[in-house]
Amino acid sequence: MSKAKSSSDNARNVLMDKIVSLCKRRGFVFQSSEIYGGLNGCRDYGPLGAELKKNLKDYWWTRMVRDRDDVVGMDGAILQNRRVWEASGHVGTFSDPLVDCKETKARFRADQIFYASAVIGGESHGYVSVTESPTMAEEAEQKIRKIQKKGGIKGEIAALEMEPLMEATPEEHALIPSPNSTEPGTLTEPREFNLMFKTYVGPVENDSNVTYLRPETAQAIFVQFKNVCDSSRIKIPFGIAQIGKAFRNEINPRNFTFRSREFEQMEIEYFCRPEEGLPLLKEWLETRLKFYEEIGIPREKLHILDVPEKERAHYSGGTYDIEYEFPFGIQELEGVAYRTNYDLTKHQEHSGKTLEYIDQATNEKFIPHVVEPSAGVDRTVLAVICEAFDEETITNEKGKEEVRTVLRFSPRMAPIKCGIFPLLKNKPELVAKAREVQEVLRPHMNVFYDEGGAVGRRYRRQDEIGTPFCVTIDFDTIGENGPEAEDTVTVRERDAMTQERIKIADLLTYLLERVR
Amino acid sequence: MSKAKSSSDNARNVLMDKIVSLCKRRGFVFQSSEIYGGLNGCRDYGPLGAELKKNLKDYWWTRMVRDRDDVVGMDGAILQNRRVWEASGHVGTFSDPLVDCKETKARFRADQIFYASAVIGGESHGYVSVTESPTMAEEAEQKIRKIQKKGGIKGEIAALEMEPLMEATPEEHALIPSPNSTEPGTLTEPREFNLMFKTYVGPVENDSNVTYLRPETAQAIFVQFKNVCDSSRIKIPFGIAQIGKAFRNEINPRNFTFRSREFEQMEIEYFCRPEEGLPLLKEWLETRLKFYEEIGIPREKLHILDVPEKERAHYSGGTYDIEYEFPFGIQELEGVAYRTNYDLTKHQEHSGKTLEYIDQATNEKFIPHVVEPSAGVDRTVLAVICEAFDEETITNEKGKEEVRTVLRFSPRMAPIKCGIFPLLKNKPELVAKAREVQEVLRPHMNVFYDEGGAVGRRYRRQDEIGTPFCVTIDFDTIGENGPEAEDTVTVRERDAMTQERIKIADLLTYLLERVR
Repeated sequence: MSKAKSSSDNARNVLMDKIVSLCKRRGFVFQSSEIYGGLNGCRDYGPLGAELKKNLKDYWWTRMVRDRDDVVGMDGAILQNRRVWEASGHVGTFSDPLVDCKETKARFRADQIFYASAVIGGESHGYVSVTESPTMAEEAEQKIRKIQKKGGIKGEIAALEMEPLMEATPEEHALIPSPNSTEPGTLTEPREFNLMFKTYVGPVENDSNVTYLRPETAQAIFVQFKNVCDSSRIKIPFGIAQIGKAFRNEINPRNFTFRSREFEQMEIEYFCRPEEGLPLLKEWLETRLKFYEEIGIPREKLHILDVPEKERAHYSGGTYDIEYEFPFGIQELEGVAYRTNYDLTKHQEHSGKTLEYIDQATNEKFIPHVVEPSAGVDRTVLAVICEAFDEETITNEKGKEEVRTVLRFSPRMAPIKCGIFPLLKNKPELVAKAREVQEVLRPHMNVFYDEGGAVGRRYRRQDEIGTPFCVTIDFDTIGENGPEAEDTVTVRERDAMTQERIKIADLLTYLLERVR
Repeated sequence: MSKAKSSSDNARNVLMDKIVSLCKRRGFVFQSSEIYGGLNGCRDYGPLGAELKKNLKDYWWTRMVRDRDDVVGMDGAILQNRRVWEASGHVGTFSDPLVDCKETKARFRADQIFYASAVIGGESHGYVSVTESPTMAEEAEQKIRKIQKKGGIKGEIAALEMEPLMEATPEEHALIPSPNSTEPGTLTEPREFNLMFKTYVGPVENDSNVTYLRPETAQAIFVQFKNVCDSSRIKIPFGIAQIGKAFRNEINPRNFTFRSREFEQMEIEYFCRPEEGLPLLKEWLETRLKFYEEIGIPREKLHILDVPEKERAHYSGGTYDIEYEFPFGIQELEGVAYRTNYDLTKHQEHSGKTLEYIDQATNEKFIPHVVEPSAGVDRTVLAVICEAFDEETITNEKGKEEVRTVLRFSPRMAPIKCGIFPLLKNKPELVAKAREVQEVLRPHMNVFYDEGGAVGRRYRRQDEIGTPFCVTIDFDTIGENGPEAEDTVTVRERDAMTQERIKIADLLTYLLERVR
């Protein structure tokens, strides 16, 4: 691994640290139950994070449900009858392979461990193992150097070949040390660990009362397909959309809010005739790409992965992953999957209830096929924040250079649309006028009134939380510099830092045109 | 219990049955995982229910957070470190008393069982027990009649005195039959049953990995108090608001969505100085009563219960319950509670982290007091539906009497604000014009396009789901009856069933004034 690569990894870690730190400092994201040491894989959204997340979910609901004739919403329970998860296959197969370190009792996802043979001076000196990361080859090499030093072994270290633990033979597995150990054979055999959180419903903890926190929102939609058809008079092709929490007991939650144990999904199951499946898959991919552009994630930062057949589920008729260039790597934001009629067929089999659709015009009966655009709320919020984060060096009012941290949110996503500042807080006419302006804007957008400190500092505070506009009420506004400028305000734009003089009477229209 | 009371109970049951049936038929509320026999205490919201619930939550968020300078939002995880629930007292004391029927294994909440002595002809013939209900005295009397008949006992049955099982002496308890049995002593001793759902976080099911699904949203707010203070620059008095799911493993879920195992809360913790607590309690009560009026629940249907000191928690400085006249009885919608500084003090003790507030102006340090308005989302949705439900007998176009079912939602809450109907679906000019009108309105409100059946039937369908306005595009609109009427539509109002002729150019403003 080259030095250049390593230093760019480092830069990306620094960037991610800055983002995590800003998220805490300004109230976007906190560790859940932080004062008790947190809970790994769970996070709370603070005041600004809650607004940002709500803006995202509301915009998705508006564009995917309310703006369309062919999609209706629903809102299902997190706790469902466990037979839902038997039918969906989650009870049987929704698991990750797990191995333990016999020495330290640490647990690892077996598919995230890589090993290499320690070949020094042409001779084998056992194995080393590491957990998956962009720098894992370097880490493995360091471990081999330690073996060399400790054993006083002479000779060159051979070029490393990193292999996945899952592909080791039983003989090799018995000789590979755990990533936490130097002793050979300190990893247990991999075993399957189901990722669903289990709980008991009702006052007895027995098998018949077991259920699970839903690992995805989609199944509630399939299970209610018939009820929605019967109550909505909606005709195929049509979709059912849902936003809600889901839970996966990840062995190794990581990358801030990206891979969490508790997370939120925005999913649509779009039901259609079999022959419409593939064309609709492509149509939904485009619809969803457009959505990301509308919330400020440009097309060039998105990657489309056409998932190869051998990596897809056996029933899948095609899947596109929409990926984003996060600082920690290119990772999935959304899957757009053509699931054929697999899910409805399974639920029909397991429930004994017919889930056929009846075409009123032709009297045809069939189990609809389905295309599923399934997006992660928390991942998208994180992508929006990462995309918005910027630092630039500017010259301040005093002629000094300073770093300006700015979140360049699309105004549509910004938690606060407009800051409202009276120039001075101890001049009652300025304060009263600023409050008037606030009352004009507030019914239409989220605003923030701030009278503390120099206006320049107030700008910086709003820059850092991504507020696209700030309005300052000054002596012109209250008529102290003549009737010409009276009832006008300064509107300062975040990105260009330009200022315009706008009449208060025109302000609402001016801003509404720019923040919707 | 008088006949009159009993028949009014019956009428109320019939009303509730009609509401539950409408909710399923028109897609407001379904049983969760219904095709698998459901899951007791969990329900899914269908297309219209999801919209109604979203309207409620959005309006609460607008009025309680965005419209106010002194409240910020947050959005905490459902899974928190279990020490949160130890500190809050939920691990120790959040339980209901549970008894089992030894004969049938049925489980009951002990505090919902009542018993009476069977005194016939002046002599005692044991006891009977029943579960709490408005008709429980009648049920008990019937059970005594059976004893009389079976034993061939002569004499009058003495007036019944229903006593709570929890107040029975051990000697009486040993003789009382379970509500499911006629044998004496078939109830086990009451024992405490914790209402939190338990689960394990991480790959090992051991004590240190136990946590619980949150039984209330409030604690996440207390736990993040310091982070919110540090990141928001907000000054006391101020509130932190949150909407989210909570879970209670109720022994006996009942009354449709009213008492559920999975439910959603809308809570504010409003932090203040000790001396502000009581005045703020009264202020918040008024604020919240006003909110209910704004969503269509009139003040006269709300009851305010000033909870007596002996029924309040020991730390409480006062609590008002806001109750609504549901068909199944007067029941709590919201609690407005003055919780003193109990919660923050407990979390400071248990976490070892200071949760004091520092007044920047005076340098005073203190643990703030808190007033908590805590509302149930599902309960409020149910109250909105119950309040809106109406049936009236009207004369239809053919001169026949028919029953019109109508949900008289406040337009603000209505899932769909406006129905849009072309008079005929096979006249392309009408359809095209109707689609044009739809595109004008849709960016501003949720609309529903319907071209199926006679207009009268379309009105009825919208009445039944509470759509306040319907717009019909007819031959006048497309200019077939002269230029005078061209580009005008009929707007029909749901409650008065009046029709007005409105220019399309004025339609958006006309409707916006009436649906916001």
